[in-house]
Amino acid sequence: MSMNISQALGENITAAIQSVVGTDPVALHEPSFDGNESMYLQDCLDSTYVSSVGKFVDQFEFELAKYAGAKYAISVVNGTAALHIALKLAGVQASDEVLLPALTFVATANAITYCGAVPHFVDSEERTLGIDGAKLREYLLGNTSQASGRCVNKNTGRIISAMVPMHTFGHPSDLETLLSIARDFNITLVEDAAESLGSYYGGQHTGTFGLFGTLSFNGNKTITTGGGGAILTNNLELARHAKHLTTTAKIRHAWEFRHDEIGYNYRMPNLNAALGCAQLEMLSSKLKAKRDLFSRYQNAFVDIKGVELFNEPDNCQSNYWLQTLLLDEDQSDNLDVILAITNAAGIMTRPVWVLLNELVPFKDFPRADLTTSQSLSRRIINIPSSPNLVLDKS
Amino acid sequence: MSMNISQALGENITAAIQSVVGTDPVALHEPSFDGNESMYLQDCLDSTYVSSVGKFVDQFEFELAKYAGAKYAISVVNGTAALHIALKLAGVQASDEVLLPALTFVATANAITYCGAVPHFVDSEERTLGIDGAKLREYLLGNTSQASGRCVNKNTGRIISAMVPMHTFGHPSDLETLLSIARDFNITLVEDAAESLGSYYGGQHTGTFGLFGTLSFNGNKTITTGGGGAILTNNLELARHAKHLTTTAKIRHAWEFRHDEIGYNYRMPNLNAALGCAQLEMLSSKLKAKRDLFSRYQNAFVDIKGVELFNEPDNCQSNYWLQTLLLDEDQSDNLDVILAITNAAGIMTRPVWVLLNELVPFKDFPRADLTTSQSLSRRIINIPSSPNLVLDKS
Repeated sequence: MSMNISQALGENITAAIQSVVGTDPVALHEPSFDGNESMYLQDCLDSTYVSSVGKFVDQFEFELAKYAGAKYAISVVNGTAALHIALKLAGVQASDEVLLPALTFVATANAITYCGAVPHFVDSEERTLGIDGAKLREYLLGNTSQASGRCVNKNTGRIISAMVPMHTFGHPSDLETLLSIARDFNITLVEDAAESLGSYYGGQHTGTFGLFGTLSFNGNKTITTGGGGAILTNNLELARHAKHLTTTAKIRHAWEFRHDEIGYNYRMPNLNAALGCAQLEMLSSKLKAKRDLFSRYQNAFVDIKGVELFNEPDNCQSNYWLQTLLLDEDQSDNLDVILAITNAAGIMTRPVWVLLNELVPFKDFPRADLTTSQSLSRRIINIPSSPNLVLDKS
Repeated sequence: MSMNISQALGENITAAIQSVVGTDPVALHEPSFDGNESMYLQDCLDSTYVSSVGKFVDQFEFELAKYAGAKYAISVVNGTAALHIALKLAGVQASDEVLLPALTFVATANAITYCGAVPHFVDSEERTLGIDGAKLREYLLGNTSQASGRCVNKNTGRIISAMVPMHTFGHPSDLETLLSIARDFNITLVEDAAESLGSYYGGQHTGTFGLFGTLSFNGNKTITTGGGGAILTNNLELARHAKHLTTTAKIRHAWEFRHDEIGYNYRMPNLNAALGCAQLEMLSSKLKAKRDLFSRYQNAFVDIKGVELFNEPDNCQSNYWLQTLLLDEDQSDNLDVILAITNAAGIMTRPVWVLLNELVPFKDFPRADLTTSQSLSRRIINIPSSPNLVLDKS
């Protein structure tokens, strides 16, 4: 029986992954609960504090801010809610444009639309999998002008008020370049750090460079609260406002129910924060396991032609949330075959998201040249990344 | 020392409440976890399914629909999210108006604004504490016209596309009259049943009369999921669409990430649904305890002048979520004194919400005459209502 090239590559990848994780079926990313999760959940039941306030909410916010080196953390129901409020408080107005990578999860764009604003898609770079700063600067020089201290898209006449880099799979974007662009063009930087808890750029935690950073604790993330997210900021007034807006904008009073603006019910329940507190205690061991897993994959893939294991960018320490294979350009037509072969072998592998500009709800929105994003979207394969793949075997 | 009338009434109320609940400090409403809560939470940890999917989500939705006699239930993060999606799928468009009582929690109005629509406040009646149907019909006859099968506010020119009665403290609104108005004026009925799980109008569960009904499982509700809510509907297509919209509008596929409309991250995590499944098993005993508590308060308040214990409307069975005192008209100036005396005695009592039309964010929105709402807002006092106030003492 003859075997074509894509099948051979698919089988080589399958063998390499199985040499690390074994031959049982394996998920892309599973949470693990090896700490105080059970005890803290029971504590919620015993205290009856399961809902909108409680000691675990306070503790989770305190520990999270401390861990990330942010002054303040505000816990919310999920990363989407975190982004929505961060953008709103960053001053994004209806009909503004907000820059974001085309290569991100749909939540980044959705949150922009919740503000009534328009997602404006820009290209990513292969080095970081995040926004290509050099290309963005050139694009903005050619397509925008400054008016009254605001950046205006010359093609649409709309203000570009914010940019939202996303740290893909936990790899920090080129924050130094993006920050300089934000300053030079009067664009507010909000970091979508949903995937990058535990990732550092030049020694500083992601999500603490912009006016806001947002985190996610969905079940597939490095640590989970069931559903959950958080807003990071170093600005006291904005932190207070974020807490106010996410808790129905109720004014403190002994018994009166009075709200002073249109608010949201975005608070993280104490039950979910309890899980988060226990998970946060295990974060460093999970991160260590993820780096170990990366090393093992590195050894397994060193001799496999046609594909490369993605490594953290220079000057960065990534959390390696999702381990990533990058197919060579000349292998990109084989993506579907490789996904089929690996999934058929019980290995959960996934492509990256369909580029957002290609989705029906976003197809008519403004975008820059997206050549690299288009290439990456045909070449990225995420492979099993759970920390317990190492912990269970060490 | 002489004692004025308001102090005397405050002390009589304090004594009556304490004759039922004892003299220890007592909350307005506390959850209790006397069933399988601990076991189901542990099951989530053991299975690792704490997040966006899981057997408890499916079970909670199934059991909830069955209990309410709705064909479908879609669980979401909270009652606000439920209302947002229900209104969106009811066809509420930006710049439409939506009728709601001025006497409701702020979430009802907030959800309307999330659709870009305009809250339009109408009056409530003392008999149900919900929308006054007779008064609404007269108001609509005088202030609206029909154009192309839509109801148009003649004063603003905007379409009135929906009405959202809210079943205050668990007491069903006058659904028969409101349904006939909805039909006669081409206005879609969506029920805010956040407070009325376990409440029936003419033998049918609240939240199943309108195109949608929405529930809340916040910590202060009859049963809790920490944070949570649900959408009820009898329409399969709308149920599917609600599930789709609340789960990021992702198209089912073995591995592709493609979304066909702007969606929301509103799903209830499996962890919270686990709590809900256990709580739902205890619902009938909680409801029984609440009716018992009502009877005990009835006996305690029978001889107290100046205040009346609110009783379920005719032809209804209420869940008595929050027990309610209604001050006589001539006592309404004494509300704050009575709140101060009871709270100082360790009894958590609360007034009703500030009327929404009086809040800064809503003060310029359209409203009907609100005479009864204004009267009720100065006369309602909620008193301790937890089911365990009876269960612990029986």
